[in-house]
Amino acid sequence: MPKLILIRHGQSQWNLENRFTGWWDVDVTEKGAAEAWAAGELMKAKGIAPDVAFTSVQTRAIKTLNLALEAMGRLWVPVTKNWQLNERHYGGLTGLDKAETAAKHGDEQVKIWRRSFDVPPPPLEVGSPYDLSSDPRYAGIKIPASESLKDTILRVLPYWESAIVPELKAGKTVLISAHGNSLRALVKHLSGISDADINGLEIPTGQPIVYELDDNLNGAYHYLSAR
Amino acid sequence: MPKLILIRHGQSQWNLENRFTGWWDVDVTEKGAAEAWAAGELMKAKGIAPDVAFTSVQTRAIKTLNLALEAMGRLWVPVTKNWQLNERHYGGLTGLDKAETAAKHGDEQVKIWRRSFDVPPPPLEVGSPYDLSSDPRYAGIKIPASESLKDTILRVLPYWESAIVPELKAGKTVLISAHGNSLRALVKHLSGISDADINGLEIPTGQPIVYELDDNLNGAYHYLSAR
Repeated sequence: MPKLILIRHGQSQWNLENRFTGWWDVDVTEKGAAEAWAAGELMKAKGIAPDVAFTSVQTRAIKTLNLALEAMGRLWVPVTKNWQLNERHYGGLTGLDKAETAAKHGDEQVKIWRRSFDVPPPPLEVGSPYDLSSDPRYAGIKIPASESLKDTILRVLPYWESAIVPELKAGKTVLISAHGNSLRALVKHLSGISDADINGLEIPTGQPIVYELDDNLNGAYHYLSAR
Repeated sequence: MPKLILIRHGQSQWNLENRFTGWWDVDVTEKGAAEAWAAGELMKAKGIAPDVAFTSVQTRAIKTLNLALEAMGRLWVPVTKNWQLNERHYGGLTGLDKAETAAKHGDEQVKIWRRSFDVPPPPLEVGSPYDLSSDPRYAGIKIPASESLKDTILRVLPYWESAIVPELKAGKTVLISAHGNSLRALVKHLSGISDADINGLEIPTGQPIVYELDDNLNGAYHYLSAR
């Protein structure tokens, strides 16, 4: 039976500082690296052995994957990196912390951007220090100016279908190291969560989520627990 | 113009102990990890920006690559891992240090195995603790019992031709993190070194070797220097 493991990257510096990160390439903290290693050890202890792995093109997800694979003794597993697994792009909110965002836009507006399914934040401003248009990892890719959760889903799912589903259908155990919102997109799809309910789903950092799937890729998930 | 960078993994525990390693999956030492990071920093300082990377399925080469890419800020670069870039398989010598090998087989015989182009060491003994037949990374692969340098070349070059040459022909900058003998195989091929002379070529750990190639993939190499 195919098995799917989802893991959100370990704590990043901006998770710690409570700043909107999105596509900005913030590294994991020491705590985040330790979370990643512990997740790998836990998977190994539970007999989970990924055959292939997928991640975004963002350092925090790649490092989390590399650390977890190393802790499992499976650094040799094939890894594919793709921007479609990136975090939601927070547009003009990128880099702002909670207080700065509230001061600039007001609490109510922030709640709408954070929580609504299809309202994107304002676009990244021209000349922003967070402009990624010259970042070589995005050469040839149309970088969004901002994304709603719906926008995120609309680029995660085609990648899921084209690249990841075939591996699961082949019976492989697949590990995906990604981000709060790209993983929400997958959980929403796999567990049939409504547009209204998905915002209530918080995915913690560094905690492996395991889906035991049937041949039609239906199945329930559970968090892997050390107990 | 296509550019090729070769790097031998940073010092491993068995490099340090002077033991034959081959396909046994020995980790890098702290010094080896530092060599890998420094190599990445050096490449970055020299403006070398790999578009794609290749490595073996052995931890020491993969970690060296990951550390170097991270130091370059290019952890997002696509990486392909393949057993055909593995170290030469040392067969029955695996795990022996210099003194043990000499005591068991005599200095002269050891020199022949180490230095000859086409004489493989004795095969790995049945029941050896270094037997890899149940290692999942080699599922479906005919693991050699022992390899001469010639045997190593005979599986490195087909991979070079099928997987790496197309990237170079497309004008990409390619980084390969591999092993003393799989890199010797490539340098022998690229620089037209004879069977007799190749054994004189020692490749140091953690030192980037840069080939500036023409469209026919001919060109000379130099070690990247911090000076």
